[in-house]
Amino acid sequence: MIDLYSDTQTRPTPGMREAMARAEVGDEQSDSDPTTLALCERVADLLGMEAGVFMPSGTMCNLVSILVQTRPGDEIVVDDQSHIYNTEAAGSAAIGGVSVKALSTPAGLFTPEAFEAAIRPPARTAPRSALVSVEQTTSFSGGSVWPLTDMRRIRDLAHHKGMKAHIDGARLLNAVAATDISARDYAKGFDSVWIDLSKGLGCPVGAVLCGASHFIVEAWRWKYRLGGAMRQSGILAAAGLYALDHHVDQLELDNANAGELKARITGAPGLAIEPDAAQSNILCFSVEALGITATAFAEACLAEDVRIRAIGAHQIRATTHLDVDRAGILQAADVIRAQAARFHEVRR
Amino acid sequence: MIDLYSDTQTRPTPGMREAMARAEVGDEQSDSDPTTLALCERVADLLGMEAGVFMPSGTMCNLVSILVQTRPGDEIVVDDQSHIYNTEAAGSAAIGGVSVKALSTPAGLFTPEAFEAAIRPPARTAPRSALVSVEQTTSFSGGSVWPLTDMRRIRDLAHHKGMKAHIDGARLLNAVAATDISARDYAKGFDSVWIDLSKGLGCPVGAVLCGASHFIVEAWRWKYRLGGAMRQSGILAAAGLYALDHHVDQLELDNANAGELKARITGAPGLAIEPDAAQSNILCFSVEALGITATAFAEACLAEDVRIRAIGAHQIRATTHLDVDRAGILQAADVIRAQAARFHEVRR
Amino acid sequence: MIDLYSDTQTRPTPGMREAMARAEVGDEQSDSDPTTLALCERVADLLGMEAGVFMPSGTMCNLVSILVQTRPGDEIVVDDQSHIYNTEAAGSAAIGGVSVKALSTPAGLFTPEAFEAAIRPPARTAPRSALVSVEQTTSFSGGSVWPLTDMRRIRDLAHHKGMKAHIDGARLLNAVAATDISARDYAKGFDSVWIDLSKGLGCPVGAVLCGASHFIVEAWRWKYRLGGAMRQSGILAAAGLYALDHHVDQLELDNANAGELKARITGAPGLAIEPDAAQSNILCFSVEALGITATAFAEACLAEDVRIRAIGAHQIRATTHLDVDRAGILQAADVIRAQAARFHEVRR
Amino acid sequence: MIDLYSDTQTRPTPGMREAMARAEVGDEQSDSDPTTLALCERVADLLGMEAGVFMPSGTMCNLVSILVQTRPGDEIVVDDQSHIYNTEAAGSAAIGGVSVKALSTPAGLFTPEAFEAAIRPPARTAPRSALVSVEQTTSFSGGSVWPLTDMRRIRDLAHHKGMKAHIDGARLLNAVAATDISARDYAKGFDSVWIDLSKGLGCPVGAVLCGASHFIVEAWRWKYRLGGAMRQSGILAAAGLYALDHHVDQLELDNANAGELKARITGAPGLAIEPDAAQSNILCFSVEALGITATAFAEACLAEDVRIRAIGAHQIRATTHLDVDRAGILQAADVIRAQAARFHEVRR
Repeated sequence: MIDLYSDTQTRPTPGMREAMARAEVGDEQSDSDPTTLALCERVADLLGMEAGVFMPSGTMCNLVSILVQTRPGDEIVVDDQSHIYNTEAAGSAAIGGVSVKALSTPAGLFTPEAFEAAIRPPARTAPRSALVSVEQTTSFSGGSVWPLTDMRRIRDLAHHKGMKAHIDGARLLNAVAATDISARDYAKGFDSVWIDLSKGLGCPVGAVLCGASHFIVEAWRWKYRLGGAMRQSGILAAAGLYALDHHVDQLELDNANAGELKARITGAPGLAIEPDAAQSNILCFSVEALGITATAFAEACLAEDVRIRAIGAHQIRATTHLDVDRAGILQAADVIRAQAARFHEVRR
Repeated sequence: MIDLYSDTQTRPTPGMREAMARAEVGDEQSDSDPTTLALCERVADLLGMEAGVFMPSGTMCNLVSILVQTRPGDEIVVDDQSHIYNTEAAGSAAIGGVSVKALSTPAGLFTPEAFEAAIRPPARTAPRSALVSVEQTTSFSGGSVWPLTDMRRIRDLAHHKGMKAHIDGARLLNAVAATDISARDYAKGFDSVWIDLSKGLGCPVGAVLCGASHFIVEAWRWKYRLGGAMRQSGILAAAGLYALDHHVDQLELDNANAGELKARITGAPGLAIEPDAAQSNILCFSVEALGITATAFAEACLAEDVRIRAIGAHQIRATTHLDVDRAGILQAADVIRAQAARFHEVRR
Repeated sequence: MIDLYSDTQTRPTPGMREAMARAEVGDEQSDSDPTTLALCERVADLLGMEAGVFMPSGTMCNLVSILVQTRPGDEIVVDDQSHIYNTEAAGSAAIGGVSVKALSTPAGLFTPEAFEAAIRPPARTAPRSALVSVEQTTSFSGGSVWPLTDMRRIRDLAHHKGMKAHIDGARLLNAVAATDISARDYAKGFDSVWIDLSKGLGCPVGAVLCGASHFIVEAWRWKYRLGGAMRQSGILAAAGLYALDHHVDQLELDNANAGELKARITGAPGLAIEPDAAQSNILCFSVEALGITATAFAEACLAEDVRIRAIGAHQIRATTHLDVDRAGILQAADVIRAQAARFHEVRR
Repeated sequence: MIDLYSDTQTRPTPGMREAMARAEVGDEQSDSDPTTLALCERVADLLGMEAGVFMPSGTMCNLVSILVQTRPGDEIVVDDQSHIYNTEAAGSAAIGGVSVKALSTPAGLFTPEAFEAAIRPPARTAPRSALVSVEQTTSFSGGSVWPLTDMRRIRDLAHHKGMKAHIDGARLLNAVAATDISARDYAKGFDSVWIDLSKGLGCPVGAVLCGASHFIVEAWRWKYRLGGAMRQSGILAAAGLYALDHHVDQLELDNANAGELKARITGAPGLAIEPDAAQSNILCFSVEALGITATAFAEACLAEDVRIRAIGAHQIRATTHLDVDRAGILQAADVIRAQAARFHEVRR
């Protein structure tokens, strides 16, 4: 099976398993798990932030960033294809009591101008615009990469209006791999930012949320309240440290594989691919012209041992990662082309 | 001063004041204020619902309808110009923990198809689509009137998907006055609906929320929890009963006055008015072509004793009501035309 | 009927009704209702606070004070017989997300020492002690009056620990009438305080919450969000101004009437009355020794046209107010004594 | 160092580490991690429940049980020394919006009668009593063990009143080890119950929450919303399965060690130990008679390489577990006796 469903499907490698088995551990709740502390310090350094906290998931990183930096009745500004708006079970409203202003965009990247227009003028009767979130890279808009200049203008506009600026950096390191820009440069001046360990980095569990020290103090309080405080989490953190040592370079290969996949299926009958698709390790394309649903197309590929994901009525998402090598990509491309041809033929 | 800022600006008439002064009262919290009970029964009958509850505001009617009919983590579907989304201080999220799916529309009226597309497929990771709200008439989209057929298709789609259907009927009686359709017909089959007493009906305070008896039981619980339970509210309810006796016919005049205002300022230089504007007692128009902000235009008119409301960068809203008669409308039209001409001249 | 159920049962007098009918009004939401503004200023002055806001109920005053001065996950300290803990439908948790530390006391008055012991040491794992509330006079503990020195020590302890100090002053003016201490002196240095208009003061609806100007700005925001923002509330505020002019002296009579009632039923067979009962306008006593429930005793009195309230299995509460004069008190005392004698006889 | 601070301090053994390193994994979010599925099935079977869900912490188990089985404005009944009330950062209020009725008891065990008295009569104005939680064994009341008959009477009373009944079973297996009663028998008829893996069982991370299938469906939704959904959690679940195979018998030794410690320090000067202390693996005692704080006593022991926990001004808690053997217990007893003698001498 060639699994391009998501980079969350990666399984720990033997080396990573060994690192976990040998991890030195303590109780993270009393700040005495040395491996977890080392991971947090390392990621904070990578992102140029003062401190970090280990979390069981990226969803908790987003949620805690919102909880710490807003009050009930505030509003956050996000893209309308963002993970926060669509795929976090409305945690921001359910737990944080915050309203969401979801901006409609073509590629998951809103402009500074659109952001500025979305900020509410202060009024008793209106939600209070409190935080803006940038998802780098975009998860459901084809892994598109935010331009640094736009991120910085948005960050500055937010601060100018008294708002906080957050980066959902689940795949931030894929953006780093796709550009000449460091994670520190992307994160600079933002109030909160996190990276996921269980996506392209290949760890089984976890993410690290970073920010200023006082932010992390409050983030820890919410992590605990939500039930995210673990005990000997060094077992998991060891995987994170291993990944940072051994799997970061892989992200460039993943990005290149997404590009290769795009090149190989472009021109297949009935597949619509945006010219700027596959900017990182995600490729989205539409099967609408084939007259079938995305689900039907995905199932047809699955029958040929290639797993891709229907993320809309006609939209498909394929995500590359360290468990699929170049040969797998070529095989996946063959299957996708063949299925497109088959459905095209049926339709005629 | 000719005040077209909002129909909320109406002041009680001498007759209404006398009715309040003579009201028979008791304690509404023990269901023993006879005047409040009589009002609730009357409005429930008007709307064809089993029961009603008196509220200090329309905002509390919307909020309580959401609170009773959703759970934290659910999502509600509304128009993106709706009062719930923009002008209730994010109460639905802050208090109810619900996410808002705000549909973008030209005139505040979304189609059944757009609604259907907005319903989320069931998934652990997604908000649960739980309630749809129709604002009849639209407050910030020029008082446009929802077609009955669309309302019913939306209602049926909602029920088919296990969702509840709500009418924000702040100005429902203006829609009734503008069509041949009764309030009962509009409300039929909806799970919750309310009318405001302090807008075109001219009362100082209050609204009545209606629904099935079991819904009202839970609505009362939330009314109390929010601090909306009063004591001798018969004083206020007496104004409501008086208004239903004496001010309902006025709404037709208000609608006609908005039409008259539209007719008289159409063609004024630099004013853009939609062809289907002023369907009820609200007229919206744009001053963008004059090269000035709505605020500047409103201030210029205010200097001439005509108060209108800037509701966007360039968008103006004028609302007719029982405190402005036909002569006032003619005068307001003269001022608006004159100011448009003046700004137009300046610009050239 | 002699109604001692609660001082909330008072009905507006002819003079108060006339004041309401003649009230000058505007839109309170744009801060332009002159009567409401005048009332807020007057109460703020009475309490020595910077500003005030008119609310539809005392429950909303307590709720908003908590909402503004805490964050979700904080804890408030109250008496376990307090209105906040028992009779506000858990609004502090449901809407504010705050935990309640309810102190067990004999008379609804906790000591500064008990308060200090209830403050949680700072810890990631514990709620954050954020606000203490003093209910002056106690509603369900027989109208007992907090000593000024205890209130001040509690206030100072709170501030020393970074907490806010709140007075639930529903019947604060009854405490003023019972002592030589002014409302200003009681309220001095507290962060929020309110008085109810619809209890002993005899108004149909409303309460006024006071505090520093910045507190009131935020209180207004929550009032609006909860649906407590009205329009021409001057109608109701006029009753409040009238009451402050004409009904404050009445509170001394009410207090004296409670004392008279106590004196007259003390010694009745089977009734247990605390020596320090009836410190203000509330008298509590137990019927346990009669071997019947409080409900049975209350029903027996009601059959004799005297309405009192069962507030526990065996506990009765009688509350005096301006709708019951001295003759009514004497008659009530006769009925209560007679019923006690009758049940006592039955039991033997 | 002999660490009796808590059984959460246990570190994974070599055998457990090897089991983790070899774990077969998949994505738990798509229900395809075979090891996590196996663990959930095994614990559900152990507890006689239909289904289970793996959680990152016991705190999340309690929180989710509350979230699924209550609505905002409901009230839960717990012991006032319970983990839920004191050591979960007010999550039940902050996230669930529920009020807590905390019963005062001597040993963390409330009676069915006390529970019944705490259930609120239905009223608009009162919180709705919705759930009762029993903590078996008690964490901060010396590991005392609830009698099965009391648990069942409480469970039945709850159901009779339409409430749900929950077991916080963090150390339920210690109760099983201390009695002849199975986990199934304790859990029978309760609506939700969980056991912790990271306490006496020695796992690094995790707990399993069980209940009816429809309950687990909703629990999963909240787990995801809170950010508790992980990916290849089989790594952690493998430790849980290993512990159930190899560490359950250890709990009897732990209980016996607590008893041994009690026997050895009983009679030491200035230490007060309840006659029924050390019912399971926790021993609490007071140092008040030594005239010092619990913190001072704990620090003195720590200087002698014995770590115990101050859980009150004068209250000490010592918890036994698989990382401390009988020799360690004897040594700890010697240190505690010696320190007691030393402080006693100083005081004289």
